[in-house]
Amino acid sequence: MLIGSVLGSVVATQKDEALEATKLLVVQVHDHNNQPTDKYVVAVDAVQAGTGDMVLFASGSSARQTTLTQNKPCDAVIMAIIDSWDVGGENVFNRRD
Amino acid sequence: MLIGSVLGSVVATQKDEALEATKLLVVQVHDHNNQPTDKYVVAVDAVQAGTGDMVLFASGSSARQTTLTQNKPCDAVIMAIIDSWDVGGENVFNRRD
Amino acid sequence: MLIGSVLGSVVATQKDEALEATKLLVVQVHDHNNQPTDKYVVAVDAVQAGTGDMVLFASGSSARQTTLTQNKPCDAVIMAIIDSWDVGGENVFNRRD
Amino acid sequence: MLIGSVLGSVVATQKDEALEATKLLVVQVHDHNNQPTDKYVVAVDAVQAGTGDMVLFASGSSARQTTLTQNKPCDAVIMAIIDSWDVGGENVFNRRD
Amino acid sequence: MLIGSVLGSVVATQKDEALEATKLLVVQVHDHNNQPTDKYVVAVDAVQAGTGDMVLFASGSSARQTTLTQNKPCDAVIMAIIDSWDVGGENVFNRRD
Repeated sequence: MLIGSVLGSVVATQKDEALEATKLLVVQVHDHNNQPTDKYVVAVDAVQAGTGDMVLFASGSSARQTTLTQNKPCDAVIMAIIDSWDVGGENVFNRRD
Repeated sequence: MLIGSVLGSVVATQKDEALEATKLLVVQVHDHNNQPTDKYVVAVDAVQAGTGDMVLFASGSSARQTTLTQNKPCDAVIMAIIDSWDVGGENVFNRRD
Repeated sequence: MLIGSVLGSVVATQKDEALEATKLLVVQVHDHNNQPTDKYVVAVDAVQAGTGDMVLFASGSSARQTTLTQNKPCDAVIMAIIDSWDVGGENVFNRRD
Repeated sequence: MLIGSVLGSVVATQKDEALEATKLLVVQVHDHNNQPTDKYVVAVDAVQAGTGDMVLFASGSSARQTTLTQNKPCDAVIMAIIDSWDVGGENVFNRRD
Repeated sequence: MLIGSVLGSVVATQKDEALEATKLLVVQVHDHNNQPTDKYVVAVDAVQAGTGDMVLFASGSSARQTTLTQNKPCDAVIMAIIDSWDVGGENVFNRRD
């Protein structure tokens, strides 16, 4: 999984029917020190995430292992909203800050 | 999924028979601010996309999760045509512009 | 899928038995404007390709979706020989040129 | 698999229910000479690893091949704690040093 | 598949039980002209390879398609020892040299 920040959402009415009623979010990948990188992914939201949330997303076939994404043409899923993480004993991110 | 712009199409008469009657499109990957990158993919079109369309494509085994691509040697599929997306509350792309 | 040019072949007598009688080709990845990149892959040939051919290859589990590669430890397959492709309405490559 | 060093852990209470009771660790990728790189991954811990351990992690669908991660939206798993490795006959890392 | 050179091996006693009795080798990726790159992978050896051998390895789910690696948390497998390869009609590598 990688850490990312939810930037916004994608609207697409003409899409594979299996993806009806899924929310597609634009996620910018952050590094482990919480610096934004130039990488992003559009992921299906499986955990009620919203813009500004720091999240974990899973890629590839693992993105289809949620009830919401099973058997769908989806290669990235947000499967957790991050509360906090630490590196070397130091807190890097805390949702309540 | 990643965002891309459809540049054109590939003609290949000598191909795996499972891919007969599939449309192969050249898609340039764009970043989340809609800047073209130097990455591309050749994807099977599952949503009647055409040159100039801004699309979402899925990669890997997820590319085989449409009716059209099931069990085929295909590692990228266009599964949505994008109407619009936003970043930080600002509209980045709108199909009608 | 990505576009590549077949550079040559690999000989390996000591290999997993499932790969007996498969042809392993060295493929240099080209970009969508037909410029060679510094990336390559060794792919199983499923379409009778040869040195100098411009081809499409599929990666990952999708590489096992041909009759030839099914259930084999193979993560790249040449599944089409390209006749031509175009970008922005302009022909980029034509096999007969 | 790649070699990595466990930097810390991620706390996420709002997550896909299949991931309840899994430990999520931040792993910095090291190169084969044991130099840290700028890449990282958040991986499920399947071998009781802890901060400071040098580990091996597997990515993609292979990350779901442990008892702990089966059928879960998890694309990286720590499946070994490294005791030592050598390159060209020279010891590069030894856990007891 | 990619071409690599076996640099050494990894010792890990604390690992997922499915990986007992597998040999883990450090493989440096070479390019198609046989120049070493800065990429590497730790792969399970399925073909009795040893340090100094030039090998082919398969990644992802394809790495689980050997008898040895089936259903194991392994995302890279050495599935061939290379005898030789050529590029543009010229021999690039020959094991007997």
